[in-house]
Parts: sequence; structure tokens; C-alpha cells
Amino acid sequence: MQLPSVLLENAVNAFAALPGIGKKTALRLVLHLIKQEPEEVYHFSEVIKTLRREIKTCKRCGNIADSERCSICLQPGRKQGLLCVVESIRELIAFENTQQYNGLYHVLGGSISPLDGIGPDQLNIHTLIERVQQEGIEELIFALNPTIQGDTTVYYIQKKLKDSPVKISTIARGVAFGGELEYTDEMTLARSLQNRLPLDRYISGL
Amino acid sequence: MQLPSVLLENAVNAFAALPGIGKKTALRLVLHLIKQEPEEVYHFSEVIKTLRREIKTCKRCGNIADSERCSICLQPGRKQGLLCVVESIRELIAFENTQQYNGLYHVLGGSISPLDGIGPDQLNIHTLIERVQQEGIEELIFALNPTIQGDTTVYYIQKKLKDSPVKISTIARGVAFGGELEYTDEMTLARSLQNRLPLDRYISGL
Repeated sequence: MQLPSVLLENAVNAFAALPGIGKKTALRLVLHLIKQEPEEVYHFSEVIKTLRREIKTCKRCGNIADSERCSICLQPGRKQGLLCVVESIRELIAFENTQQYNGLYHVLGGSISPLDGIGPDQLNIHTLIERVQQEGIEELIFALNPTIQGDTTVYYIQKKLKDSPVKISTIARGVAFGGELEYTDEMTLARSLQNRLPLDRYISGL
Repeated sequence: MQLPSVLLENAVNAFAALPGIGKKTALRLVLHLIKQEPEEVYHFSEVIKTLRREIKTCKRCGNIADSERCSICLQPGRKQGLLCVVESIRELIAFENTQQYNGLYHVLGGSISPLDGIGPDQLNIHTLIERVQQEGIEELIFALNPTIQGDTTVYYIQKKLKDSPVKISTIARGVAFGGELEYTDEMTLARSLQNRLPLDRYISGL
């Protein structure tokens, strides 16, 4: 796509480098910005710069934070002995938005994937083991993606913690609410049979 | 959606204000930026600020420009007597990308739409009339959107120019290449019959 201005082209290329944004979408966004008041665009530009300059990683759990500790670690009333282990901040946000979880988190920063050169040392696994040993964690809930990499990571950490009294569980896998049984894959259906729930527990969960 | 950081929330809201970007997409883009090197993000931020500060509108045709005149007006070898009249810069870019047009453009900035409070004075119509009279334009090709507003605009300008010797045409309306006749609307089909082409002209255009 040829563009009639170098400034325009630079901006379109910058947007098109973002994930999921093609050249046409980038052009639409940039033409929108051109039409806005300069102050609004400067604000947009500043917000992004400030974000990158000032955003921190929580030293305890790996969540993004505005200071040394993230807002979840600082929140009073959270169960300090309960940890939900996630791959990335996106899953953390998803669980937070259920408003059903009242423990803390630990963000691994990915899952073990030797083919991509990601071993345990590239992830926040060492800090997790430390937390379990030093903070008196009672229960770990693994909420990793249902992939070979996710399962490998759970297995690795569980082995590292085999001498610790910590309780370890994973989130339930099964047929999603609103999901059609007919279109659910065999693996999920098989697991949903194996891990069937007594009806009274199912009803009390609704 | 609750977010664990004020900085993050500001950035997500800034992106979600762009057209076609929802909160989830905005979050994905912002988390991507957080992972980039600071210099890259500063560059992104600067490119946008520079764009808004320095982008100009071509004083002659209304295209976006890096200086007083746009790159198309400055390009030597363009037919100076031929004007393609478009609503916005997006259509100009689309026609440029066909690499089939060698005249100049005139960007109206929209089409006449009394219901939206857009009359001839809100558009670059006055400058178009002036150009036709002063620059010795020989032909105007209207390439406005096939809407009531577009047609009204063509009619208005054509009336204003009725005493001028300029030739006026509009781009062809018809069945698009790759379009299925069965699914083409009646209006387009009817027009494609009315404005049928002798076969030798059709073949020479391929």
C-alpha cells in the first residue's frame, strides 16, 4: 500500500507492528487520530510512554504493578495461604473478573517449552518454590493452559514440591457452560466423565 | 473489566477509544507494548505525536501532506487538467493503489448531508469550483460513495459548474469483478444493463 505522506507511513507502520493489526486497520486508526484534537493525540502518546516507563512487576507474584507490590498483593482480606498459579497476566485478569477468587496469584511468565528454548530457569518457578517454603502457602491451584507445555510445567513444579506439605490442585476441566456436548472434543468429554461430580456438589456450585 | 494497575487502565482506555478497538483488544495491545523494549515504545509514542503535530493538509487538493503541497500535486508528469473528486483521503489512497490513474485529486472532506449538519460550506466545494475556473481543469471524475449524500453532492457541484466548459463524469457503477450476479442488488443490476458496454471496449479494458 502506497501512502501519500512519510509521516503517515511511519505512523501506519508503527500501528501495523502491533499484534492483530494489519495495514488497512492501521491506516483507519491513524486517519482517526489525525482528525482528533492535537491535545487528545498528545495525551494518547503520553499515556503509552508513561505506561512503559513506570510500569513495574510485582516483586512477589509477577503481576504488573504501579509500585513494588501489585494491587492484589496489597489488598487486605485476601487469603495469604492460597495461590493461583497462572501463565500470564491475561489469565490473572480473567480470574479476577470472575470475582470468585479471594487468594493471591503467582505469574509464571509462560510455560516450559524446550522447543522454544523456555526452560524452568526462564520462568518464575524458582520464586514460586521460595514462596511456598517461606510464606506458609497451604494450597496451590494450577490454572495453566491445557497444553502439553502447561501439563509439563505442572508436573515439573509438583515434583519440586513433593517434600512440601502444600496441597496442590488444578482448575476443573470439563464441558464449558453454554457448550454443546455434540461439538466438544473427545478428550474433554472423556475427562468430564472421569471427573464427574456428585449432584449435590454440582447444585451447590450454581 | 477490572485491571490491576492504574497505568495499565489508562493505556487500555486510550486504545479502546480508537474506532473498532474493544477493551479486550486494547488490553492485548497494551500487554504487547509492555513486553517491548522501552525504546521501541517511546518510538511508537513519538511517531504518533510527530504525526499529529506536523501533518498538513495540501492547500490545493485537501490530501494529507508533509508540506504545503502534497506528494501527488508535486509529482511531475501528472495530468494537470484531470481531477478525481473523492470524499476522503481513504478513497484517494485506494485509487492511487490501483496505479491506473495519472491525474490529480480533490478531497471534499465528506458529502452533503443536511441531517448531519453538513452543507456545501462545510466541505471543500468552494475550492473545487475555484480550481476548475482558475487551473484550466478539463475533466472532473466524481468518485463519491453511491449514497444519497454522494449523489446530492455530485448534483450540487454539477449545477454550480453548469456554465463552465469542464467535462464531468462519474466512475462506472456495475457488477464488481468476482461478484456473483445472483447476490447483486437490483439497483446495481438494473444500472449494469442500462450502462452496458460494447464488447470491444470491455475487452480493451481488460
